Amino acid sequence: MPHPSSHSGHDRGPTEPASNTPADLPHLAQQAAAFLADYLTSLERRPVLPEPHPGRLLERLPSLPPEVPEADPWAAIYEDLDRLIVPGLTHWQSPRFFGYFPCNHSVPAIVAELLSAGLNVNAMLWATSPAATELEQRTLDWFAHAFGLPESFTFAATNAGGCIQGTASEATLAALCAARHRARAAARARGRTTVHLTLYTSEQAHSSVTKAAMIAGLADGPEDRTHLRLIPTDPAGAILAEALGQSVRADLAGGLVPAFATLTVGTTGTEAVDSIAACVRALDDAARAFGHERFPGWVHVDAAFTGAALVCPEFRRFFSGIERADSVCINPHKWLLTNFDCDLFWTRDRAALTGALSITPEYLRTASDAADVVNYRDWQVPLGRRFRALKLWLVLRCFGLSGLREHIRGHVACAERFESLVRADPRFEITAPRTTSLVCFRLCGEDGRSERLLSELNAERHVLLSHTRLPSGPGGTPGRYTLRCAIGATLTRQRHIDETWAHITRAADRVLRHSA
Amino acid sequence: MPHPSSHSGHDRGPTEPASNTPADLPHLAQQAAAFLADYLTSLERRPVLPEPHPGRLLERLPSLPPEVPEADPWAAIYEDLDRLIVPGLTHWQSPRFFGYFPCNHSVPAIVAELLSAGLNVNAMLWATSPAATELEQRTLDWFAHAFGLPESFTFAATNAGGCIQGTASEATLAALCAARHRARAAARARGRTTVHLTLYTSEQAHSSVTKAAMIAGLADGPEDRTHLRLIPTDPAGAILAEALGQSVRADLAGGLVPAFATLTVGTTGTEAVDSIAACVRALDDAARAFGHERFPGWVHVDAAFTGAALVCPEFRRFFSGIERADSVCINPHKWLLTNFDCDLFWTRDRAALTGALSITPEYLRTASDAADVVNYRDWQVPLGRRFRALKLWLVLRCFGLSGLREHIRGHVACAERFESLVRADPRFEITAPRTTSLVCFRLCGEDGRSERLLSELNAERHVLLSHTRLPSGPGGTPGRYTLRCAIGATLTRQRHIDETWAHITRAADRVLRHSA
Repeated sequence: MPHPSSHSGHDRGPTEPASNTPADLPHLAQQAAAFLADYLTSLERRPVLPEPHPGRLLERLPSLPPEVPEADPWAAIYEDLDRLIVPGLTHWQSPRFFGYFPCNHSVPAIVAELLSAGLNVNAMLWATSPAATELEQRTLDWFAHAFGLPESFTFAATNAGGCIQGTASEATLAALCAARHRARAAARARGRTTVHLTLYTSEQAHSSVTKAAMIAGLADGPEDRTHLRLIPTDPAGAILAEALGQSVRADLAGGLVPAFATLTVGTTGTEAVDSIAACVRALDDAARAFGHERFPGWVHVDAAFTGAALVCPEFRRFFSGIERADSVCINPHKWLLTNFDCDLFWTRDRAALTGALSITPEYLRTASDAADVVNYRDWQVPLGRRFRALKLWLVLRCFGLSGLREHIRGHVACAERFESLVRADPRFEITAPRTTSLVCFRLCGEDGRSERLLSELNAERHVLLSHTRLPSGPGGTPGRYTLRCAIGATLTRQRHIDETWAHITRAADRVLRHSA
Repeated sequence: MPHPSSHSGHDRGPTEPASNTPADLPHLAQQAAAFLADYLTSLERRPVLPEPHPGRLLERLPSLPPEVPEADPWAAIYEDLDRLIVPGLTHWQSPRFFGYFPCNHSVPAIVAELLSAGLNVNAMLWATSPAATELEQRTLDWFAHAFGLPESFTFAATNAGGCIQGTASEATLAALCAARHRARAAARARGRTTVHLTLYTSEQAHSSVTKAAMIAGLADGPEDRTHLRLIPTDPAGAILAEALGQSVRADLAGGLVPAFATLTVGTTGTEAVDSIAACVRALDDAARAFGHERFPGWVHVDAAFTGAALVCPEFRRFFSGIERADSVCINPHKWLLTNFDCDLFWTRDRAALTGALSITPEYLRTASDAADVVNYRDWQVPLGRRFRALKLWLVLRCFGLSGLREHIRGHVACAERFESLVRADPRFEITAPRTTSLVCFRLCGEDGRSERLLSELNAERHVLLSHTRLPSGPGGTPGRYTLRCAIGATLTRQRHIDETWAHITRAADRVLRHSA
């Protein structure tokens, strides 16, 4: 490779600010990492919630940006992080963060994020960074194996494979676009130019399904039921397969085109698991009654949180029937030690997905397909993409599948312990069957008691729980108010469970004394 | 804050793998940063492109993931990075990367990514990390000021403000959803339940506009023109405002509802700038002819690349008329020293945006609005979001606005030099007026010469250029083949321009000798 030495003396590109010299990176990164090590170690002593003062940071920040670089910015930056930023954060990494499904990280994943930030390649096309695309293909195949997904979801199959999406919301939207593309193409093939598509999910499915329908133009607001059907669930929160089948039958009878069903493995409210196998049977039965060989629509499985547990064989039963799904997503950024964002999305019908999302005109597609490379731009909403496979790779190498299993099982053991503590206290009750690590419970008696308990806990800011309402009962009676203890933060150990329970029972003492 | 000391002895949560001890983070981060410092320093000597061997990495990776952690993973990881990954990357940070609009980073932004990865908070709601949301609000106001945007786009205005989107593609999709929401609400208010919406952009607009229409269900593939109008441009690539007005008139005459116009400040092909002021006039005139006071649709300005230059007052003319836009986006991840992903998106109509993207039912919205906090989940497609305001903050503090201006002006000077080198060589011609730092040029004569020149350069892999076709001429004559030299990589200095030009002219010697 020739390197011309024709430097002509003038070199008036951007000047090299002192703050942008690669040689400074090692000590600046070490300084940042030392700050983080202190932060992570301090979480055990910190409240998990900030003081709730809207506008507190805004009041303290200058109204205008700096005109010139700060002379020695780093000391001031760390002072401001300590003084202004950290006290205003909700600490998702706190071992007593049980409010939402967790947002895991780990030392290898953090280092991988640093590496990815420094390489800063954009793998929108295979050609714009082949190794980033190929590492993503292989790590997705590895995780398909890790979760026990059939080979029909991997790149070993002709029309299948996986990619990293930012979030499960984006995965659902991508799946919906693919479903619509396939349904319309099938309708066109039968000579129908206009079709009324219908979508199905449960009343307990994540709000991102409704949001995807809104973005895709298939719901004019969250209450619009022109296309979207929210199927009722059993009291625990799992979809009623029979009701799903009936809804599809009614739509087929009305000449509509059932195109998309999202099943949930681990609902946000209660971690309920829709039975994929029972739903597929119900969908097939409904379709056969109208002359189809099987359900022709797209089945998407949203296993964003609970799917992580499938690295352990004892939880594989949750995916029974998965071989009939068209797509599935699982988020290592929730419970598999991998930084946000990292949603893994597999499909058995790549052609439908890229058909929906590729902006290469149809008549040019064969040429680019012929190159036989994966252009991930056509699998997702955005064009650009970070090199996120790196963190999956480092997490796998540093923990192995055995380490991931240990991580999951440790938290499931924590949840078992929490559940047993709740059951041992007659003032409390468990309100939904535990699936993996989410425990739903409440104070016995009227809802107000549990509501006051949560207010007490939030005011103390020492542990973070959240609440939901159980599925409404027959006749639409409102579901009961329930507390949620979502276990899975990277640093959570059994001692935090015991500490949290002690905290909860003391708060309950106060609540019940007051209401007595 | 009480800390119960009731540790009960058993602590059977996940065990602490050696690889996940926060105390290890400083030396592991330093090691990674030292690797990156070497990498960045080496870019001057490396080819910018990898060898084009599809499957090369896939062949070398194990087919199954590791069952157990590697005993001492880090040495092996860096060996594999050197041996397997880096040689397979397209080096977006190479100073001779001129193929696509750049993907900037900087030492402060990389450190900020590390900090953000370690804090790993999810600012989907104000409450889930108040300081992350408020820092984002303020940094967006700061950048509005930096780019000379009117105050009507900032949080100082009642119904306005900015947020970070992942990419311009997502910003365009969000804007389209907001536009549709507003247009439908207006139609309902006039008693119309079904409306045929129309969308407008230029033939030279980014493909993400068409892709957004496809995702939103307003285009059934890239060629569908049921809703989407692609307006012709002048020979340089800027939209013909008059043609835009005519198209809107025709649709209004047909009873359709023009809802969304995307104007481009800096097209991908030639960095052409649509005149916002002229387009708004044309849109208003068309609307007035049909009894509207002004154009009622949404005007979105995609300034993803060129917008960065507006930190320099001499480029503010590109935003003349911006006060009439409903939204605008600019990507610091392209040309403002901030790691991918970081698209800044402002709107003057927050209510329409959150109306389109909030899954809180309409009847519950007032209660949450009353809290007077910003819940960024409702501004974007995904639910979760990383703490990306941190990198904007550190970049501003370490470079100041003066440093950002110097960065832009340095690259514009590089582009001026490159243009003058092209103009001084009679074998070449400039094919489109230069806007900031993209230079479009070609070998004089038939297209094949420039095509061969690009092949020669790609085969050498020492510099990366790309190509496009100029807008087609009157009567649809195909546009001429043109090379693109997109200057703006963080490390590019004037010496790389001279070196690149020497490279190009030597390749041209060979091409022209061969064709002579």
